[in-house]
Amino acid sequence: MSLAFAIGVGTKNQKNEWLEVFYAKPAYQPSAALISAAKESAGYTEGNQAIELTKESSTALALALKGAGESEHAAIAIACSAKADDKTIVLTIIEEDTQSATTPEVYLKLHLLSHRLVKPHGINLNGMFGLLPNVAWTNLGAVDLNELAEKQFEARLNGELLAVKSVDKFPPMTDYVVPAGVRIAATSRVRLGAYVGEGTTIMHEGFVNFNAGTEGTSMVEGRISAGVMIGKGSDLGGGCSTMGTLSGGGNMVISVGENCLLGANAGTGIPLGDRCTIEAGLYLTAGTKVMMLDDQNNEVEAVKARDLASKSDLLFRRNSVNGRVECKTNKSAIELNAELHANN
Amino acid sequence: MSLAFAIGVGTKNQKNEWLEVFYAKPAYQPSAALISAAKESAGYTEGNQAIELTKESSTALALALKGAGESEHAAIAIACSAKADDKTIVLTIIEEDTQSATTPEVYLKLHLLSHRLVKPHGINLNGMFGLLPNVAWTNLGAVDLNELAEKQFEARLNGELLAVKSVDKFPPMTDYVVPAGVRIAATSRVRLGAYVGEGTTIMHEGFVNFNAGTEGTSMVEGRISAGVMIGKGSDLGGGCSTMGTLSGGGNMVISVGENCLLGANAGTGIPLGDRCTIEAGLYLTAGTKVMMLDDQNNEVEAVKARDLASKSDLLFRRNSVNGRVECKTNKSAIELNAELHANN
Amino acid sequence: MSLAFAIGVGTKNQKNEWLEVFYAKPAYQPSAALISAAKESAGYTEGNQAIELTKESSTALALALKGAGESEHAAIAIACSAKADDKTIVLTIIEEDTQSATTPEVYLKLHLLSHRLVKPHGINLNGMFGLLPNVAWTNLGAVDLNELAEKQFEARLNGELLAVKSVDKFPPMTDYVVPAGVRIAATSRVRLGAYVGEGTTIMHEGFVNFNAGTEGTSMVEGRISAGVMIGKGSDLGGGCSTMGTLSGGGNMVISVGENCLLGANAGTGIPLGDRCTIEAGLYLTAGTKVMMLDDQNNEVEAVKARDLASKSDLLFRRNSVNGRVECKTNKSAIELNAELHANN
Repeated sequence: MSLAFAIGVGTKNQKNEWLEVFYAKPAYQPSAALISAAKESAGYTEGNQAIELTKESSTALALALKGAGESEHAAIAIACSAKADDKTIVLTIIEEDTQSATTPEVYLKLHLLSHRLVKPHGINLNGMFGLLPNVAWTNLGAVDLNELAEKQFEARLNGELLAVKSVDKFPPMTDYVVPAGVRIAATSRVRLGAYVGEGTTIMHEGFVNFNAGTEGTSMVEGRISAGVMIGKGSDLGGGCSTMGTLSGGGNMVISVGENCLLGANAGTGIPLGDRCTIEAGLYLTAGTKVMMLDDQNNEVEAVKARDLASKSDLLFRRNSVNGRVECKTNKSAIELNAELHANN
Repeated sequence: MSLAFAIGVGTKNQKNEWLEVFYAKPAYQPSAALISAAKESAGYTEGNQAIELTKESSTALALALKGAGESEHAAIAIACSAKADDKTIVLTIIEEDTQSATTPEVYLKLHLLSHRLVKPHGINLNGMFGLLPNVAWTNLGAVDLNELAEKQFEARLNGELLAVKSVDKFPPMTDYVVPAGVRIAATSRVRLGAYVGEGTTIMHEGFVNFNAGTEGTSMVEGRISAGVMIGKGSDLGGGCSTMGTLSGGGNMVISVGENCLLGANAGTGIPLGDRCTIEAGLYLTAGTKVMMLDDQNNEVEAVKARDLASKSDLLFRRNSVNGRVECKTNKSAIELNAELHANN
Repeated sequence: MSLAFAIGVGTKNQKNEWLEVFYAKPAYQPSAALISAAKESAGYTEGNQAIELTKESSTALALALKGAGESEHAAIAIACSAKADDKTIVLTIIEEDTQSATTPEVYLKLHLLSHRLVKPHGINLNGMFGLLPNVAWTNLGAVDLNELAEKQFEARLNGELLAVKSVDKFPPMTDYVVPAGVRIAATSRVRLGAYVGEGTTIMHEGFVNFNAGTEGTSMVEGRISAGVMIGKGSDLGGGCSTMGTLSGGGNMVISVGENCLLGANAGTGIPLGDRCTIEAGLYLTAGTKVMMLDDQNNEVEAVKARDLASKSDLLFRRNSVNGRVECKTNKSAIELNAELHANN
């Protein structure tokens, strides 16, 4: 079975290079009928291809899709055919999840993530950065950076404003898709390629990078770095930080389990298990030395935070009397000792 | 006396449900003449009503308002009458400050706050969330989330961009009103329903939720959570946090008195009195143990931060030699002891 | 040699006052030919002048510039001449770097910074705030705040949205210029007058004020306050803070040297030398007491952070066992003692 099929409408620069592609309804693990229709009408052969459609080929594709009973995709193809003369319509098929070879392919993968069709870390994003052009995202759509200055001057002379809201390799997700059941107060802070789970509210201070996100219900007022996934029922307080592998987190992929709470202005450099809390204002790095406390608040042992990676039911705080970082557990000293030395 | 009167122009979805309402000039505690005009021309009877105006009834309202000497509101009504055929003009009257029953009513209450006609906590917002639809706020106005995907695709086919700047129950305040004497560098971070006092500058990192704000002159580079009010002359440093009752602050309503300073990346989980300072980077929660120091820097007593709620002239810092959270006061040890135990 | 020459297209309010000016291609240290052309055609005499051009004078200027071999500026002048009848075309010449006298002059200086023609602290910005009107920056361009409410109401009646993205004295830089080789994920957080070095990526949480910026390659996820300059190769982690002279930093101008790292949610109130690190979550103020550690982690001496201003090869952290702020160095105790007491 192929991985994905989608008909997109995109933007090119004056050199006829793709700047971005919008896919109205990407199909994940497309039916054989979709693939056959692409073969008979649009010149698709095999493998991963991004095929620019003409008016003729998009019309043919629409007919083939209709014949195959794929009426929704047929409707997209027919709608696109009206615009195909400007060379911005593309049929993209990903047969195997290998490294991307074209810009439309990368955009399709980012769509799959944001449409919640694949999970973060569930698709091959290697080589992506080289295929994503840096783009000026404006009120009039994507503009090539080499063409921007002249267009901005022209707009001003016409009494208009060509406003640039972002200069980035990734556009804001919500200009491509708003998945069901979410609130995203400031959409400029969620990149295409984010996976925003149903029931998630991202407040103004929240941020979600690509290949990262939330499994389900979450209140996000902090930053979810690239690669970081947040479990159901976990909340990120205002301004809190999750270290990304791109931003100092090292090799350890950070994640947050279910029903956790990162307090406001807190941070984590280790993956957290379930039902963990980091107190407001405390930044836990992998190297932080942490005094373990049992369920009676007795000291048990000092460990590095990295040794607590992915363990559940922990509460991290900085003792306000002596400045020590502590980890309160719900276990007895004996249980805790056994757990900490289980692999010794 | 009634509470409010306003003629609004709003947006509806395809099911004829209100998405939002813009009120050009809401009247607080409207004159009897305004109410009478509404009764004689627009079918208002009594209580809290949101009456959809037709071309005919808005014209009649305009005449009645003019006859009543209310020329400003008459001008609004006449301007609205030209648009009334599309069923998006509404006359909203709030007689008593009870729980809202309609979306136009909630929007009017949020306007009253942002027009500084009522103060945060000064109007009944119960039940509000259920009446505020989650909306895609776009460059073309409010769009129902169920209608968004199709419209975005259509826009792309027309070579246009339907850009979604927010998906939220609250729109940005400044698309409805910019009160006098303020600067708001990034308006996406101030919700309708915020109360931004005259003389306030909200920098790019600042944030103000609904039913929250500043009394007067303030430099705000931190986050003012729902329900939090900041006194005159107080500054919030970059990235600092105030705990909201919706976000972990518990039952205690947080506020900041006059002439306070929250340092950058600091935070408070207790209400502060006047002339208090929290050092940059220190997050004070209600449970933080704080060593009280007298005016000679002598230790007096350790207390919980919550016991210092709303007290004035305090400086909170974390001792950088021993990690202890301290509160420096301007009182002698004797005065301080007396104050701390005044209610024992 | 004069300092700058530029032809701009701007916006005025109904009182014929400048709200802002866009300069397509400001010339720094303009050729004598440019100045002569301005003298012979547009009425420029000497000193710092902002001359409003008519259709006639902008055409004459274009001819004079063409005659002088300045074809690029001639093209700008001729393009502007078509719009000159609406009184929004201005020729601005700064002969000497004195205090600004007009709004177009201030805008030209801000352009020089953002075009990287002058460095922060390299141009006279005194008196700037009084000449920069507070403006509503909308999807339709700059709007005077006194004219805003009526225009917003009119737009709504036309079924349109006059969206205000900022209310500020400074517009976002990227509506004026996007310098080469940068990414700016959320442009609302970079003011005109910022100096963004080639190779800099400003992520969504990054911020750059005017007269501040980066020398070259940097990953900026934190806040660069007014007046702060970041050296090549230095990274600012998510939500980190640099104290500005406008925001509590006092007289000491904060800067960050080369190849430094400020961790996420960290902060500095002192200028840093090269190759310094501040651990995630630690806010270093000038008054912080810091225990110096030698290359063997031995305690050497406690000093105030301000005494370490601009010194290189320092790593600041808060000891997670005892809460003490420490500075790890790469020097022996003897070397360190010598350095700390070099000026005694």
